[in-house]
Amino acid sequence: MGNILKNIASTADLKQLSLDELETLAGEIREEIIDTVSRTGGHLASSLGVVELSIALHRILDTPRDKIVWDVGHQAYAHKLLTGRLERFGTLRQLDGISGFPKRSESPYDSFDVGHSSTSISAALGMAAAREARGGEEKVVAVIGDGSLTAGLAFEGLNQAGHLKKNLVVILNDNEMSISPNVGALSSFLSRKMTSDFFVRFKKETENLLGNVPRFGKDLLSLARRAEESLKGFLTPGMLFESFGFDYVGPINGHNLDELLETLQNVLRIKGPILVHVVTRKGKGYAPAEEKPALFHGVGPFDRETGRVKANKAGAESYTAVFGNTLVELAERDQKVVAITAAMLEGTGLKGFSKRFPERFFDVGIAEQHAVTFAAGLACEGLRPTVAIYSTFLQRGYDNVLHDVCLQNLPVTFALDRGGLVGADGPTHHGVFDYSFLRHIPNLTFMVPRDEVQLRRAMATALGCEGPFAYRYPRGQGLGLPLEGSLEPVAVGTGEKMRNGSDGVIFALGSSVEPALEAAALLEDEGVSLAVVDPRFLKPLDRELLCGEARRTGVVITVEENVLQGGFGSAVLELLADEGLSPRLLRIGLPDAFVEQGSQGELRARYGLDAGGIARGIRTFLGRQTGDRGLGGEGQA
Amino acid sequence: MGNILKNIASTADLKQLSLDELETLAGEIREEIIDTVSRTGGHLASSLGVVELSIALHRILDTPRDKIVWDVGHQAYAHKLLTGRLERFGTLRQLDGISGFPKRSESPYDSFDVGHSSTSISAALGMAAAREARGGEEKVVAVIGDGSLTAGLAFEGLNQAGHLKKNLVVILNDNEMSISPNVGALSSFLSRKMTSDFFVRFKKETENLLGNVPRFGKDLLSLARRAEESLKGFLTPGMLFESFGFDYVGPINGHNLDELLETLQNVLRIKGPILVHVVTRKGKGYAPAEEKPALFHGVGPFDRETGRVKANKAGAESYTAVFGNTLVELAERDQKVVAITAAMLEGTGLKGFSKRFPERFFDVGIAEQHAVTFAAGLACEGLRPTVAIYSTFLQRGYDNVLHDVCLQNLPVTFALDRGGLVGADGPTHHGVFDYSFLRHIPNLTFMVPRDEVQLRRAMATALGCEGPFAYRYPRGQGLGLPLEGSLEPVAVGTGEKMRNGSDGVIFALGSSVEPALEAAALLEDEGVSLAVVDPRFLKPLDRELLCGEARRTGVVITVEENVLQGGFGSAVLELLADEGLSPRLLRIGLPDAFVEQGSQGELRARYGLDAGGIARGIRTFLGRQTGDRGLGGEGQA
Repeated sequence: MGNILKNIASTADLKQLSLDELETLAGEIREEIIDTVSRTGGHLASSLGVVELSIALHRILDTPRDKIVWDVGHQAYAHKLLTGRLERFGTLRQLDGISGFPKRSESPYDSFDVGHSSTSISAALGMAAAREARGGEEKVVAVIGDGSLTAGLAFEGLNQAGHLKKNLVVILNDNEMSISPNVGALSSFLSRKMTSDFFVRFKKETENLLGNVPRFGKDLLSLARRAEESLKGFLTPGMLFESFGFDYVGPINGHNLDELLETLQNVLRIKGPILVHVVTRKGKGYAPAEEKPALFHGVGPFDRETGRVKANKAGAESYTAVFGNTLVELAERDQKVVAITAAMLEGTGLKGFSKRFPERFFDVGIAEQHAVTFAAGLACEGLRPTVAIYSTFLQRGYDNVLHDVCLQNLPVTFALDRGGLVGADGPTHHGVFDYSFLRHIPNLTFMVPRDEVQLRRAMATALGCEGPFAYRYPRGQGLGLPLEGSLEPVAVGTGEKMRNGSDGVIFALGSSVEPALEAAALLEDEGVSLAVVDPRFLKPLDRELLCGEARRTGVVITVEENVLQGGFGSAVLELLADEGLSPRLLRIGLPDAFVEQGSQGELRARYGLDAGGIARGIRTFLGRQTGDRGLGGEGQA
Repeated sequence: MGNILKNIASTADLKQLSLDELETLAGEIREEIIDTVSRTGGHLASSLGVVELSIALHRILDTPRDKIVWDVGHQAYAHKLLTGRLERFGTLRQLDGISGFPKRSESPYDSFDVGHSSTSISAALGMAAAREARGGEEKVVAVIGDGSLTAGLAFEGLNQAGHLKKNLVVILNDNEMSISPNVGALSSFLSRKMTSDFFVRFKKETENLLGNVPRFGKDLLSLARRAEESLKGFLTPGMLFESFGFDYVGPINGHNLDELLETLQNVLRIKGPILVHVVTRKGKGYAPAEEKPALFHGVGPFDRETGRVKANKAGAESYTAVFGNTLVELAERDQKVVAITAAMLEGTGLKGFSKRFPERFFDVGIAEQHAVTFAAGLACEGLRPTVAIYSTFLQRGYDNVLHDVCLQNLPVTFALDRGGLVGADGPTHHGVFDYSFLRHIPNLTFMVPRDEVQLRRAMATALGCEGPFAYRYPRGQGLGLPLEGSLEPVAVGTGEKMRNGSDGVIFALGSSVEPALEAAALLEDEGVSLAVVDPRFLKPLDRELLCGEARRTGVVITVEENVLQGGFGSAVLELLADEGLSPRLLRIGLPDAFVEQGSQGELRARYGLDAGGIARGIRTFLGRQTGDRGLGGEGQA
């Protein structure tokens, strides 16, 4: 732990440091981040890219009174280290440790909870508007990556910000654009000049002068502004932002503290919305991450000397890999198959597909709404698009699923990766709402494979369906089953009885089938005989199988890795009620609360979703007094 | 009905007409639209604005092989008249009549179902990509209004379209921008020149020439392109679209058929994505609508001679008006109260608020996602924002409600107008999913007032809550209750028993309480005694009251104006199951299907949600054989 870093008690201490000391501090922060993330895993490359920017902002601003709104938030490690979380930094992303994202409940310096992309401009604008409502003076700065700018939400924010004209700084953290040395240097020069006091005064005076010309003043002024915009547009990539009513400054070098400090200092004196274009390098200061920024974007534990990522415990392929390979297989058989990702080429396992079928692959950027509606357009014209997307990110496309796909009953397939508990990314990323936000949409078929063989069968089934289809699979490895010859479709709405039993039946879905079977085995040893049924489809449910088992045993337990509200157990209740059945019923799933971070295993254990937890829940349920039910049979009108 | 219009059997007939005849046709179409909408009501102003554009597109394109994708779709009346729906046009927006929006199931000329805004570019791009995948030649044209462009989804579409470089025409139908005569004329001139064959050839040749200069070719080319962009940016408002990689043409006069035909003809020869900026006038050709385009946007039946809108049957204030007035009242007492709308100033009843508190009112444009996240930012800094929004449009903001508001437990209030069945706008607009897509979100309180007094109480309750709060109220008039002194909050999670009865209990929510009471009265006459309970809160449910009544009577009927999947009845089932209760239970609500258009009364009758329907449903349920239940009490393990 560096000497300067450990002596920073509050961000005010930054103001005492010389430029040399700040540069030393940047090095210390990098050491700390690399060291910790090599052990905990985390978002390394992004956080290394904004070390100088984080220092510069906290040095110039008066945080936490002034607000920094980090977009997505996975780049905020340096920010965390500078704002009182050095001691606990080793617990990053661990169960009950500090979050990998900004979190208001964790620190007053974290001004907005994030995890999903592209919310920062909207939130910061809200804060700026609130400040003006109460006559405050504090600064509000949003920091957004170039990738996050592709999401419509960011543009909606830019659009209103340009209109409202509140004082607001948006920093575009650009780590993709390659700028040729000359233009970059020229722009850097220009951006310093244009934000200096002189230029600001000159611009204001010229505008006043022009504006006062009788009758034609307004036109001249508008002409002059256009001329200025055209000039800047010609010299810099700022045309776009100027169109939105922002003043554009940049690009500037995000690793040059001197340049950053001077520019930001100047920028904060300018009124109205201003966009500062900062160019950074992902993984800066750690060679392996600079070389492979994608690998070190979100990375597991690694060897910091070699940069070699520590291997997962050997074993089965991940669901993501099985999905990606199988989609290639299906696409080879059927040329109508096309694939869409929203900036998650690697995450969704589509890299192989994109290489094998570049013309049938679409990466739309971080734009989940568009991904879905674009797929609807493809399907209208006879193609069979699969939108591969993390469950949590499909939340952005809810209306598009409902209004653009399901209303027209179009054959778009949603491959929901990272369904259920995802682990260290925590509450913003768990895919534990999809049963609830999708199952009420008419026309949608929703399958939840329990293993990788069933995933392949789900994919084959989807392709045979003439309407919208979703299937959800978990983060992590499959069960290691052999995959040959497993690409057989399943009859829609048919479940499978996995185990017999006479004292009751467990209906378990997806990743809960395996622990439910284990739980049944545990309880068998205690003399309780439970059947286990995998309905395979959340929608439509297998009415005959489920109702038959409920009638036969009179005791139903549902298990799901989803919130209980409106989820799978809820669907079973609806089915049984519609059939006039009322077995004793226990629903096991996630409670009505946001689930914290932790490993998948830790969280499943904590929420009673592993074999032991399921068995414990059932034991308690079966042992419970039944007198309180009251209405079992006697209460009929 | 005009002579030319009635002789158009297919759009191919348009190609035989002279310019004069086309202009006469435009007049005939206007007559037909004004005449019909004066009787049926509908979206008059938008449709009158694009008569010439509709004629020009169908004249030039080879529809339905070529695709026109209308954004929102409420401007498509002329399109409908030209594509085989003249005879049935009188059934516009009526029960079982033709839709007020494009609908694939209605005509092959309707290429995409719409209703919500800003989907057209994404859908059209999907169609263009599908065309290229199969080597087709057809044209794809999206028509989008300037208002719809503020939605992020439209930008996501533009962004990918500029990147993919497929042939795609986006027509920006601009009916707000006022262009000064000179600039307009110049631009019009320029746009004709720039799309002529000569210019296209010249541009291509110049680019080839520059591109071939050894070593520096690429830089020169990029410099030349930038110079061209800057020049166009200086002369036209196209800078924004050029930034996205579109060629920009315009603005052109959307009511000048000659200009439209020539420009569009030229445009269709250009490769790659192109944006044509067409300026039109809302309500064009009908003076009252030209004068009051907002009034005639979506209008009820009116007197076509005077333009006077026919008064509603006298009576109670609308829920929307009560909401708007009450929010002013609350804002007068508490200066932290601020209001947000997404381009629905009048529709949400906020006009009075916006005049009384301009600095506390925010119209963010059509940008529902941003509206919600912006509100979250306001709430972070201590304000109490109310987002007034139609239920169906909040679907766009689902992730923002969950991730930006509820995850941080911020006190943002969602005032859901048009909850339940909305009438003639049909399946794209019914607010019948909100119970299902909101009730599973942790931390959210959800109240459903049964009348306007309860609406006011819900608003007072929301303001007293320190977390996210939603209340939903229907389209249309309240019950006419006196409102004085009714601004009292309700204890969260408490329901109200409305009527006693011994044979069973009806749990009815919101607009279903009144018909449930009537149904209970009808059944009383038949000797069936039913209690009626209004839980007032969908979340949290009044556990004590509901379970107590279920225990007491043993028969529960739930009634809701929402899909049954995951809705209110589903929540009641969950509650009862958690308490180990299993009364006989009937859920009345909307089925798992999209609901068609029709008046609210007609639809409630069709779906058994009016008093007669509820009584009928209960009668059947109570008369049903109960032997099939099987498990009432005996089936326990």
